[in-house]
Amino acid sequence: MYAHPGVTTDPARPVPATMKAWVLGDPDELTLVEKETPVPRRGEVLVRVDAIAICATDLDVISHGPPAMIQGGAPFNKNFTPGHEYMGTVAALGPGVDEFAIGQRVTVEIHAGCGQCKRCRMGMYTSCLNYGMNWGEHDKGHRANGFTTNGGFAEYAVNNINTLIRIDDAMSDAEATLVVTAGTSMYGLTELGGLVAGESVVVTGPGPIGLLGAAVAKALGASPVILTGTRDNRLEIGLALGADHVVNVRREDPVEAVRRLTNGRGADYVVECSGAPGAIDQAGRMLNRGGKLCLAAFPHEPDQVDVGHLVRNNIYVYGIRGEGKSATHRAYAFMAQKRFDATRIHTHSFTLDELPIALRYARERIEDAIKVVVRMPRRLAEIGAETA
Amino acid sequence: MYAHPGVTTDPARPVPATMKAWVLGDPDELTLVEKETPVPRRGEVLVRVDAIAICATDLDVISHGPPAMIQGGAPFNKNFTPGHEYMGTVAALGPGVDEFAIGQRVTVEIHAGCGQCKRCRMGMYTSCLNYGMNWGEHDKGHRANGFTTNGGFAEYAVNNINTLIRIDDAMSDAEATLVVTAGTSMYGLTELGGLVAGESVVVTGPGPIGLLGAAVAKALGASPVILTGTRDNRLEIGLALGADHVVNVRREDPVEAVRRLTNGRGADYVVECSGAPGAIDQAGRMLNRGGKLCLAAFPHEPDQVDVGHLVRNNIYVYGIRGEGKSATHRAYAFMAQKRFDATRIHTHSFTLDELPIALRYARERIEDAIKVVVRMPRRLAEIGAETA
Amino acid sequence: MYAHPGVTTDPARPVPATMKAWVLGDPDELTLVEKETPVPRRGEVLVRVDAIAICATDLDVISHGPPAMIQGGAPFNKNFTPGHEYMGTVAALGPGVDEFAIGQRVTVEIHAGCGQCKRCRMGMYTSCLNYGMNWGEHDKGHRANGFTTNGGFAEYAVNNINTLIRIDDAMSDAEATLVVTAGTSMYGLTELGGLVAGESVVVTGPGPIGLLGAAVAKALGASPVILTGTRDNRLEIGLALGADHVVNVRREDPVEAVRRLTNGRGADYVVECSGAPGAIDQAGRMLNRGGKLCLAAFPHEPDQVDVGHLVRNNIYVYGIRGEGKSATHRAYAFMAQKRFDATRIHTHSFTLDELPIALRYARERIEDAIKVVVRMPRRLAEIGAETA
Amino acid sequence: MYAHPGVTTDPARPVPATMKAWVLGDPDELTLVEKETPVPRRGEVLVRVDAIAICATDLDVISHGPPAMIQGGAPFNKNFTPGHEYMGTVAALGPGVDEFAIGQRVTVEIHAGCGQCKRCRMGMYTSCLNYGMNWGEHDKGHRANGFTTNGGFAEYAVNNINTLIRIDDAMSDAEATLVVTAGTSMYGLTELGGLVAGESVVVTGPGPIGLLGAAVAKALGASPVILTGTRDNRLEIGLALGADHVVNVRREDPVEAVRRLTNGRGADYVVECSGAPGAIDQAGRMLNRGGKLCLAAFPHEPDQVDVGHLVRNNIYVYGIRGEGKSATHRAYAFMAQKRFDATRIHTHSFTLDELPIALRYARERIEDAIKVVVRMPRRLAEIGAETA
Repeated sequence: MYAHPGVTTDPARPVPATMKAWVLGDPDELTLVEKETPVPRRGEVLVRVDAIAICATDLDVISHGPPAMIQGGAPFNKNFTPGHEYMGTVAALGPGVDEFAIGQRVTVEIHAGCGQCKRCRMGMYTSCLNYGMNWGEHDKGHRANGFTTNGGFAEYAVNNINTLIRIDDAMSDAEATLVVTAGTSMYGLTELGGLVAGESVVVTGPGPIGLLGAAVAKALGASPVILTGTRDNRLEIGLALGADHVVNVRREDPVEAVRRLTNGRGADYVVECSGAPGAIDQAGRMLNRGGKLCLAAFPHEPDQVDVGHLVRNNIYVYGIRGEGKSATHRAYAFMAQKRFDATRIHTHSFTLDELPIALRYARERIEDAIKVVVRMPRRLAEIGAETA
Repeated sequence: MYAHPGVTTDPARPVPATMKAWVLGDPDELTLVEKETPVPRRGEVLVRVDAIAICATDLDVISHGPPAMIQGGAPFNKNFTPGHEYMGTVAALGPGVDEFAIGQRVTVEIHAGCGQCKRCRMGMYTSCLNYGMNWGEHDKGHRANGFTTNGGFAEYAVNNINTLIRIDDAMSDAEATLVVTAGTSMYGLTELGGLVAGESVVVTGPGPIGLLGAAVAKALGASPVILTGTRDNRLEIGLALGADHVVNVRREDPVEAVRRLTNGRGADYVVECSGAPGAIDQAGRMLNRGGKLCLAAFPHEPDQVDVGHLVRNNIYVYGIRGEGKSATHRAYAFMAQKRFDATRIHTHSFTLDELPIALRYARERIEDAIKVVVRMPRRLAEIGAETA
Repeated sequence: MYAHPGVTTDPARPVPATMKAWVLGDPDELTLVEKETPVPRRGEVLVRVDAIAICATDLDVISHGPPAMIQGGAPFNKNFTPGHEYMGTVAALGPGVDEFAIGQRVTVEIHAGCGQCKRCRMGMYTSCLNYGMNWGEHDKGHRANGFTTNGGFAEYAVNNINTLIRIDDAMSDAEATLVVTAGTSMYGLTELGGLVAGESVVVTGPGPIGLLGAAVAKALGASPVILTGTRDNRLEIGLALGADHVVNVRREDPVEAVRRLTNGRGADYVVECSGAPGAIDQAGRMLNRGGKLCLAAFPHEPDQVDVGHLVRNNIYVYGIRGEGKSATHRAYAFMAQKRFDATRIHTHSFTLDELPIALRYARERIEDAIKVVVRMPRRLAEIGAETA
Repeated sequence: MYAHPGVTTDPARPVPATMKAWVLGDPDELTLVEKETPVPRRGEVLVRVDAIAICATDLDVISHGPPAMIQGGAPFNKNFTPGHEYMGTVAALGPGVDEFAIGQRVTVEIHAGCGQCKRCRMGMYTSCLNYGMNWGEHDKGHRANGFTTNGGFAEYAVNNINTLIRIDDAMSDAEATLVVTAGTSMYGLTELGGLVAGESVVVTGPGPIGLLGAAVAKALGASPVILTGTRDNRLEIGLALGADHVVNVRREDPVEAVRRLTNGRGADYVVECSGAPGAIDQAGRMLNRGGKLCLAAFPHEPDQVDVGHLVRNNIYVYGIRGEGKSATHRAYAFMAQKRFDATRIHTHSFTLDELPIALRYARERIEDAIKVVVRMPRRLAEIGAETA
């Protein structure tokens, strides 16, 4: 039985002492094990994972370990459970937690800052200066579930309450896993100023963040919203999500297309979501003087950038990390209000046991997979009529 | 001996198991008692109090209890130690703390937000929605030392590390107690935009916050800085601290004076520090269109306000609480750089045993007391050549 | 014939040399006269007025003259044409104007700043320090049509191009007259931070700005949007425009209602649109700590304000004037995207000749008039199937 | 005699009908000619140039024409007078100007936006979308003196009043020519947030903007201010102007030096003023997570940038153009208050006739020239005891 001092549970919803979890060994070596169900501390809750989506970053974490900026990490990340785009049900409350109740449905975001560094104190919790400092004698309480602390490819996960968002019964499990992705798009648009109604916004790259970026920009009233990419089927999803125009860069020069679609004025904002080499330069040329560029993706290699163009045109570039400034809450609000249908990017579903297959679909884009969602088998019945 | 699990101490600087502390009984009933030295938790340190200044709010807390907005408080605040403008030496470290070392000199600010509410997450820790929630089973970790948690009229106090600022050896104990006051002034100017170089700033009311408000405005480059008040001796201190002009409102209409001193243009910013009835209306008339008003004080009774004047002139009013947005650090930086000499407002010194006398000096403004500082007797030798 | 050096006209759309215009004599004395059609200067165009809505401020201007802060004005405003909520068709271009073309449909906003004062240079054109300075040898070029320069109760009016917004063919004339009102609501929400998705917003007072304030808050994703007022029929329009909850203050204490509807947390934002005495205090008590209050209306007399409550709770108060920060463009974008149906507040229509009747409907709220729109008779045929 | 309709002159200070001016022919071909003294329009004044400093951009303009983003320009810029860092005396007032008086000493900044485009309306006048649109039938009134409109290598120049700053008698002519350079540094720090007291600021590149950038950062209270460069003599000037530490990048890796000087934490802000290849990457590595980077210079060729580092660390990059947000006024305020001695970068003086020599000193850095100032010969007597 799961019983720990200070932790509140509900006898009507018992938590097992052990759970299934996928655990990393060497790179790309994932094993499904039975391990102890984790225990929430002060300000934390235990979440029963009901569904989890796969993000491209998960694939990186599984193959290469957590992002390089983690300090003092052990060699690779052995014995670690990845996965960060999950949702579920509150299963137990850590000491002092009364903000949530057991049984509540929640979705999660990634970053719980330490709350004590300069950046956290400024409200910049995704830039916590104690990133990754969550073990040993100098534990600062930072959590980035699925990156530096155990994530959601498991039956249960622990979350700081700062990383939880209550969800309406009307929202399906699968849709709720997409809130954090929309939150990243919203964070980008927030840093661009947020007041984009009637302004021209270009989103480059129709991956999940780009597609939901177009949706969020439209929800905020941007006009026109222009989405660029290489695959027509994805661009069509972009149109359904709210893009006013799409540009297939295989058929038309995107800079010229943006100029044409903005009556020669250029765009006010670009959200770069492709990570393609040369994308920053193209974005710079799409923008008008004083325009702003958000980088929500990046090429793996250093890129050539015409810096002079940016400086002469007073262009500001925002390299965003994660989903800060409570953007996930704003993204959720739009989703709950049905401003756009995020489930259009959800293409495939698997069960927890099938995770390796799900990861292969995501990695190899089998059947043009966009978002692959993993659900907990025992609850497939509950999930019922959800879109898949 | 003082020894607690997880708490680091230094044998070379032993901490006594008990300490002297002034404790409130009924209103205005302060008793000096011997009690257990408090114990820091995660993210907290124990500070040996070396000096503490008296603020007008201390007098309110002692007579009326903590400010009314505290939720769920016990009747009055029995068994509580007030005092919030203190500085001292780090004496012990709570679990996981490596940001500070034992022996380091520090000064403090008041508010440690819960880190988990919406406002804290935005960086607005002085507006923590769990203000005062720091006891019992739903302890949210909020601290406002001297308001809702024990303060500094004692030999030791516990502080969240977020509320500590390292101080240079060159800064005296007495000067260091004034950092938090300058921090409030800085917070006000921060909320007014912060970029006040060459802009006209009026400070109304030459109490401690007003006097240091003039100093901080000047340090930020404001020009002219105009200070209004009723007492010539205080206005002269204002001139020494950086005011370009002072106006004795007993001899000249302050609105007309401000118009005259700004060549008819009116002020760009007003920092209201008098709390006098009618002060907001006067401030509104000092400002030019689009000007901004910070309220760092307030009248005890509801005030008559010509709201239409504010609206027609697009005036924004910032009612500030405490010393948010890390303003204390910026205030400290200016003080460490000797941009102004805050000790000019320090008028009287007493020892901890003499607290009741010190409070009387502050309350009755005996010998025109401005800032009354209480020092620890055993360390008077160390304090040496400080200004008093 | 209308021909002036440097002014471009279109022979296919000739402009008459004279026009009909309502002109003020003594207070409340409006006369329909034939006068010369005005001539646009550099950066200005001539607009043929197609429709104009009546605002409460028009009634003030007609009875009392332009707002008091105008400097150097002549006694009352004789020979002046009021009216500022108009839309129409570009009829002639001043020298150097190529941003607009003759025949284009446009709606207008009020303030064209001088472009040379400190506030204009900051982008605060509605707080222009040369407000009303538009005549004689020190003409600074400021225009506030209908306030300090001739407005739209006429067949033609001159507008600075900064005050024009192109409108889609799909938007009716009557709807287009409401853009400036929605723009004021949007300006208020902009100053409150703009990022209100998922945040609780209370709008007090269901006049035109309040009703469209609820609509704009909803379009921005606010949740819940709570509208308070005294008339059920107006509150019902508020529900149709996007309010989630309405509170009739005759039947329920609005502060308690807001607490209830926000699960005890209080509101994050209040937009005060009633101008009722005591409204600021009520708003202050609706807000949670760190909340923000926009004043889009004000009582005619000084009001009692519990200033201490605002300061202790770190509440900021934004007294907004007009529709700054290009808010009208953002409001238009939402209207063009059909996010809300502003025409729900349009209750009555009259022709230009009937202006006195139209004003009486607006002043006396005959048949519960909300927005009364005046259309140009000769074009009633064109206007066709519009909502009335 | 100089007499023009609507233009005010002072008989006691007559303006000659013609003046001496350096005029560009083919690239690098400057000729001193006698030409008509220019005439101010509405909102403009005529300035008698008393002194003018040479900027590296002047050399570019003279050799290559105005920056490439000017639309519709004539081939090269024949018959054009360059020079933009000047100061002087108001000599005549255009129609309607009462903000300045003849005889007043003023210094200038470069950009007068059109006042009518979207960016100008936002207060972003250095990003005017009508940049360079100042001639022919679609004249939008934009001026960038010395770039797109005639500048100050002449006896007289016309300035929009928005580009004038009154100067105290106590400031020398030579010092006043440096205000615009300090204004660019101030603009950069403004865009970085402006609230840098107690924060670590690195300035890379000890050219005029970098040296004054260190000075402005210090005046704003930054601590430490670290200046990097390759020449010890310039770094020493940086120390005199306010840098706390200097790093000669020929002797020490600047990234490691910054880490060392910030106790391993990295810098909060970097102002890049070197334009050296690789400088952005170095700056990115100097910054801590969530830090900000201002680009006040740029390499002539596209640069390799490790974009992933910026994105993973939530770094924002501000490519600034000119001296926006009224920064020149704030820079002037600090200079007038003697917060730093800008004249330390003034190394050489010449007269107007000697301009070609002066340009050669600036271009070839003869005798390690930093700022070369050109003064008007007839007034050398007046200038008297100035530093040179």
